[in-house]
Amino acid sequence: MKLLRFGEPGTEKPGVLVGNDIVEVSSFGEDFGEKFFETDGIARLATWLQQHPDLPRVKQPVRLGAPFQRPSKIICIGLNYSDHAKETGAALPKEPIIFFKATTALVGPNDTLVIPRNSTKTDWEVELAVVIGKKATYVSAEESLNYVAGYCVHNDYSEREFQLERGGQWVKGKSCDTFAPMGPYMVTRDEIKDINNVKLWLKVNGKTYQDGTTANMVFNVAFLVSYVSQFMTLLPGDVISTGTPAGVGLGFNPPIYIKPGDVVELGIEGMGEQRQVAKAY
Amino acid sequence: MKLLRFGEPGTEKPGVLVGNDIVEVSSFGEDFGEKFFETDGIARLATWLQQHPDLPRVKQPVRLGAPFQRPSKIICIGLNYSDHAKETGAALPKEPIIFFKATTALVGPNDTLVIPRNSTKTDWEVELAVVIGKKATYVSAEESLNYVAGYCVHNDYSEREFQLERGGQWVKGKSCDTFAPMGPYMVTRDEIKDINNVKLWLKVNGKTYQDGTTANMVFNVAFLVSYVSQFMTLLPGDVISTGTPAGVGLGFNPPIYIKPGDVVELGIEGMGEQRQVAKAY
Repeated sequence: MKLLRFGEPGTEKPGVLVGNDIVEVSSFGEDFGEKFFETDGIARLATWLQQHPDLPRVKQPVRLGAPFQRPSKIICIGLNYSDHAKETGAALPKEPIIFFKATTALVGPNDTLVIPRNSTKTDWEVELAVVIGKKATYVSAEESLNYVAGYCVHNDYSEREFQLERGGQWVKGKSCDTFAPMGPYMVTRDEIKDINNVKLWLKVNGKTYQDGTTANMVFNVAFLVSYVSQFMTLLPGDVISTGTPAGVGLGFNPPIYIKPGDVVELGIEGMGEQRQVAKAY
Repeated sequence: MKLLRFGEPGTEKPGVLVGNDIVEVSSFGEDFGEKFFETDGIARLATWLQQHPDLPRVKQPVRLGAPFQRPSKIICIGLNYSDHAKETGAALPKEPIIFFKATTALVGPNDTLVIPRNSTKTDWEVELAVVIGKKATYVSAEESLNYVAGYCVHNDYSEREFQLERGGQWVKGKSCDTFAPMGPYMVTRDEIKDINNVKLWLKVNGKTYQDGTTANMVFNVAFLVSYVSQFMTLLPGDVISTGTPAGVGLGFNPPIYIKPGDVVELGIEGMGEQRQVAKAY
């Protein structure tokens, strides 16, 4: 299944993408959040959909929100593609680098990117985001995929001055409002044959900057879910964003950063596409 | 007012501390969380309490939970006391260091500290936690205290190996379950005369290790709230933990870390006391 949420910010309704149609599932009575996932909502919704074949289709175009409610945390993995580590001048990590992104940064896949006040180095990062389906503490890599609900596209926007030149920890450059577009939908785990072999790409103003594959991850999805769960409890609906391949603006000489009016498009094989237009705060 | 929450984990009820009595305020119909704070809940509750002088008292002793529901984020400030920066061998920060703590670490003030699996360096940090009362984006230091709902004690437990020796970012050593005891209550802002001049202390097994004052902060509360709001939106109920004074286990030679059975007690002037007993996972 492909779960999504549509409507105005703060009042999104749940839907399911069937072909190109959005089927509204408000009458199922649950939004896609912690409680939905922890009570086996995906399986219950699938059964319910079979019992309700005549649900209304949503008139398009319509704004999409993030495909799930605000999670308890958005965990990101740093430098998880060897080509990206190289372009930033960083050594390949011996074990995963974990950082957080404020959940207040979460927006819909095609919402406007707001370049923060005082920003001169707003950069892009196409990433595979993993959505947790079951509470996970100390799970092994062998069993960890059973704790995954599904996947979606994430643009891990990053202000490089805030992140790297303003004292200490990366979260400062990762958490601005609109810095976490997710969607267009969350695809359930069963629909992706091999999560370690999907392509992901990103264009700015029509030019391709990132063109990678999850096959080049330093640490794969199963390892990452297990690893993070050694340090904190993952709740249903939590997100782990798994790092970005080469081609971010920081990696160019001179670096390339986002200006007002720039158009950023990105996508992952089997998970749809996003499009953001940048504006100044 | 002094807001608290009592009862078993996950089913806490709201209460107000009046003298030594806990007054149950379940019939007010709201728990202490984002919606309560953003709708001026403190003022509404104060009025309601005056109209309801005969509310039931809670039989004590009773378990206390954190004094508010799980916030959208727990933001911590690193190395914010000059004496603590010195003991860790770090330079004084030029601007605040921000890091996050997983909200899944949040527990009650007297709950058991669980030393994580594979931990040998679990350390303590008494901290003043600031609770946000209104949504805050780009607020100035002059106006920022108006965005504060109140204050409480926080023990910012830290696994030093996870934090400092396991690759990159501090969040890895800050986010284990039970690593964020908050409470016993949140005192509303009006009850603290000068937040930049309150004492805070911590003992392990009866011996005083931390004995500081917020007067020694590098960046004061008003500055911190304003500063953080330049990088992310603060939501009602969010927490900013403002750093720890000297005397953490890491600062001793050799360092001192927490063992199963150790008793950690801490408090802040006007904000009550906590007591945690450590056990192995």
